[in-house]
Amino acid sequence: MKFSIKRAALIKSLNKVSRVISSKTTIPILTGVKITADDEGLSLTGSNSEVSIETQIKSDDDNNELVIAEGGAVVLTAGFFINIVKKLPEEKMELSVASDLQTTITSGQSEFTINGLNASNYPHLPQIDTDDSIPFSGDIFKEIISQTVIAVSNQESRPILTGIHFKISDGKLLAVATDSHRLSQRTINFSGNNREYSFIIPGKNLSELSRMIEEHQDLEMRIAENQVLFIFGDTYFYSRLLEGNYPDTSRLIPEESSTQIQLEAPMMLASIERASLLSHESRNNVVKLTIDPSDGKIKITGDSPDVGTVEEELEPDSVTGEELEISFNPDYVKEALHSFGKTMIEISFSSALRPFTLKATEDGNSFIQLVTPVRTF
Amino acid sequence: MKFSIKRAALIKSLNKVSRVISSKTTIPILTGVKITADDEGLSLTGSNSEVSIETQIKSDDDNNELVIAEGGAVVLTAGFFINIVKKLPEEKMELSVASDLQTTITSGQSEFTINGLNASNYPHLPQIDTDDSIPFSGDIFKEIISQTVIAVSNQESRPILTGIHFKISDGKLLAVATDSHRLSQRTINFSGNNREYSFIIPGKNLSELSRMIEEHQDLEMRIAENQVLFIFGDTYFYSRLLEGNYPDTSRLIPEESSTQIQLEAPMMLASIERASLLSHESRNNVVKLTIDPSDGKIKITGDSPDVGTVEEELEPDSVTGEELEISFNPDYVKEALHSFGKTMIEISFSSALRPFTLKATEDGNSFIQLVTPVRTF
Repeated sequence: MKFSIKRAALIKSLNKVSRVISSKTTIPILTGVKITADDEGLSLTGSNSEVSIETQIKSDDDNNELVIAEGGAVVLTAGFFINIVKKLPEEKMELSVASDLQTTITSGQSEFTINGLNASNYPHLPQIDTDDSIPFSGDIFKEIISQTVIAVSNQESRPILTGIHFKISDGKLLAVATDSHRLSQRTINFSGNNREYSFIIPGKNLSELSRMIEEHQDLEMRIAENQVLFIFGDTYFYSRLLEGNYPDTSRLIPEESSTQIQLEAPMMLASIERASLLSHESRNNVVKLTIDPSDGKIKITGDSPDVGTVEEELEPDSVTGEELEISFNPDYVKEALHSFGKTMIEISFSSALRPFTLKATEDGNSFIQLVTPVRTF
Repeated sequence: MKFSIKRAALIKSLNKVSRVISSKTTIPILTGVKITADDEGLSLTGSNSEVSIETQIKSDDDNNELVIAEGGAVVLTAGFFINIVKKLPEEKMELSVASDLQTTITSGQSEFTINGLNASNYPHLPQIDTDDSIPFSGDIFKEIISQTVIAVSNQESRPILTGIHFKISDGKLLAVATDSHRLSQRTINFSGNNREYSFIIPGKNLSELSRMIEEHQDLEMRIAENQVLFIFGDTYFYSRLLEGNYPDTSRLIPEESSTQIQLEAPMMLASIERASLLSHESRNNVVKLTIDPSDGKIKITGDSPDVGTVEEELEPDSVTGEELEISFNPDYVKEALHSFGKTMIEISFSSALRPFTLKATEDGNSFIQLVTPVRTF
């Protein structure tokens, strides 16, 4: 294998695949990046047991200044190789692999010789059927992930809850996550194709994917039995699926409520952030909300026996229904409020012990956050 | 105590004193910031066992919007208090301390009540004589620190070497640091006053001080028996001095050399950074420099038995004297080169086993870096 390339092009692609490569894996070859050269260009692959990423650098894209003199493949220790490429002196570099896998990297007067690994020992990426393809707008997909991933569980005790559940049927896509204390659910109209799907993707893999998708980029999703493949730009992103049945969450969302407040999400967020300064100093991290529809005000209180108390009155745009005193984990409510950005929201309560919902006032039911209160009496 | 203030002014001053306050100290009151209010304004104090910082917020500076309604003093848990002040809803805030030290902080509709500590239990800052005052330009002082602090030892086995030694006499100031593997020495002409001084200030305290001094700020230094006080703007910075005799470093710097190279510091720096990519993978972190005056070239080599090798030829502006092969810790040389910025430097060697010096070509002896080589045979 032998090629020359503009360093910036190689660095850009190495940064993509290296995000999943760990230097601490127990499978030595997975500490490496696999580089394959053929007539079309270079292909770089990085993988851990959860996610594999493959990205192409095309010969016919003049920006890459890529010239393949000889095809072939090699695996090079990723962290180390990237550092070398980043620090080389000239804009361009050459890489050539000898028959004993000794890899020579030159740029200007600098010449590195490093030991390569045999690419045929690198695990094969899963084969995924091409006819089951679901098209997506990358922007909408990123929005769905950011809105639901906050409620994903990070406890391995119920692995199924560490994923986001996607359900496609009847022209709708529903994405839902819950850690059993709170739930996030987003629904969109979906006319991608007419099949029905139900699958669960690990939340942390989706966060990683989300960071890689550029603005306004198209996304294609292909589902296999235990794998999902996302294709965007020159990149293939493979994630395993979580196996098992996701709990039926549809019945968790209450349809009726007895107390409702409407206000700007950031106003409530700032107030709860202040209250949580004190609740965080306390053993049971709880903030209390007192709603009094008679004077149209709500009161937010946090306290810690050792440190002190904070109390704050807010005047929401509307306070309706019955009086209520309810306590909750402020961190859950902060993350829920944060996911609404600057919109006006409605928070609906049924009782001090039943879960309450947060929705955008103008948006109906397409995006719902649900939080379970904390019993303090 | 009772005052109202613009939050931004209080945050700025809290950030200054809080940099030395640790939440992990074994002396509980030192986790707090001491706040004193009198006719002139507020005074904030933070301290650890090494450094104390006191800063003033003046009533007569309209930017602070400071109004003292009642004098007094209190100590408040620093990290926690700063977070509260940062998150308050309005531009202004009020603080009042009741007789039981309960401290009420209000801003808009938000009201915090936190437990204060008795300010009379806060340690007194050292009294430092005012007539022994040494004036400094803050810019030059920061430059001296940045040039010498790299050679300060971080090993507590010889505490004296964890400081920078300052010597003022005969119209000159000399600052020197060495960890016994390398040495940095800066000399400036000094006409501040006619006394003679010799004192050692802990390097890490000087780094902290350096970050606090603003551009073009004047600095005043006052020396007492075991303390030094720096005054700049509205801030007093106290550091302890290291006790003991600093080793005589004047004889360590060789006056003659047998091989000399002249080149731009960044050119050499980039090359050694590349070589160190490999030496860092090896047990003995060593880079080899081969100097051949006959063809005017030098060669830099790094290798690691497990990973590979790197070799690079440079053409310095001048290579004179005898042939030489010398090995060194690349990290020491990197830091030394970095301290010269973009200037042309001369590196002078006497033998493969004797320390070599780096100096700016145009600057003579006012700034010298010295590095001891590593024996590899």
